[in-house]
Amino acid sequence: MIRFVVAGHRAHSTADFKLDDIAGGAGRLDVLVRCVNSSFFLSHALRQDTELYLVLMGGTDPPKTVRFSGNELKYLNPDERSTSSLIRNALLKKLGSGETRASPGIYVSRMSFKDVVDSLGKISDIAYLKEDGNDIRTVQIPENITFVLGDDRDLTEEEETVVLSHGPERICLGPKSLHADHCIILVHNEIDRRRQ
Amino acid sequence: MIRFVVAGHRAHSTADFKLDDIAGGAGRLDVLVRCVNSSFFLSHALRQDTELYLVLMGGTDPPKTVRFSGNELKYLNPDERSTSSLIRNALLKKLGSGETRASPGIYVSRMSFKDVVDSLGKISDIAYLKEDGNDIRTVQIPENITFVLGDDRDLTEEEETVVLSHGPERICLGPKSLHADHCIILVHNEIDRRRQ
Repeated sequence: MIRFVVAGHRAHSTADFKLDDIAGGAGRLDVLVRCVNSSFFLSHALRQDTELYLVLMGGTDPPKTVRFSGNELKYLNPDERSTSSLIRNALLKKLGSGETRASPGIYVSRMSFKDVVDSLGKISDIAYLKEDGNDIRTVQIPENITFVLGDDRDLTEEEETVVLSHGPERICLGPKSLHADHCIILVHNEIDRRRQ
Repeated sequence: MIRFVVAGHRAHSTADFKLDDIAGGAGRLDVLVRCVNSSFFLSHALRQDTELYLVLMGGTDPPKTVRFSGNELKYLNPDERSTSSLIRNALLKKLGSGETRASPGIYVSRMSFKDVVDSLGKISDIAYLKEDGNDIRTVQIPENITFVLGDDRDLTEEEETVVLSHGPERICLGPKSLHADHCIILVHNEIDRRRQ
């Protein structure tokens, strides 16, 4: 299983945004929905062996985490607007102590960034995408791996401390600093090449 | 210079679409605007040495080509809606025989797919992204290269004939069939690594 965790530092945790304004009023939710696209879309299929955790830390009711599970996903289209709508629907759900199913393959919970990373650290290796890391083309990639990324902002010191507590491999994708969704494409391609 | 040409088989050539409906009423314009994002965006900069040609073959006034020039681009944001708005503004321009400037770094013309590929074939090598091509990690990549892609549909036989007439290198990006914008990310990464 390949997992991605994206820290949405300002992304709204409530459904109080307009689909016309996801890059503004929704706290750069556009960055996160592009990560949904790049995590799951193949040319004519969805990636089954992938999960994505979007941690929403902005708005009036943080934290919330929206989890996308590739082998259950339905109704996912590649455009930003329709994916934002799926997330907004998830944020309308009443939450209990665990996860609540919002639609097929989409779950929402009260998990914080630390909750998510610590729970995934128990069942997978953690990888931290950093410009000063080792080249992904040269590192071992275990079967079960979780890649942790920031949105349009790097992880905070506090978030980095959480990640580093799991002894992650620091992985670099190339010489340029890239958008989070572009990073996900490069990770998938490297793993596709090794597992073909 | 790195150039990309994307064949927008149904993408509207007139400004008669709503920004809320680019994946439907605009003939899968969403595929093309994602190619704009992946052609130009770095983490905190735009790629200067890149040009993108979107060939719009749908709607009531085809063909039109919208050209994006990285070293002149302004007002480009990464989200689909704002880029669609820039394209819609370009499609409102009255066209003469050559290119018309729509906004900084964005030009529109009456060029067809054949016009674009034939003109770029005179000033650059042509590369054709195909699943049965040679692995991009193993091929030579000249300084001046133009990559030709389909949108959500492969090139037609007629379009392929145009491309093949330039003796292109057939290049493959990995074992899975990918969306056009994801292909562009992988091409850029390979070139970034070689030119660092």
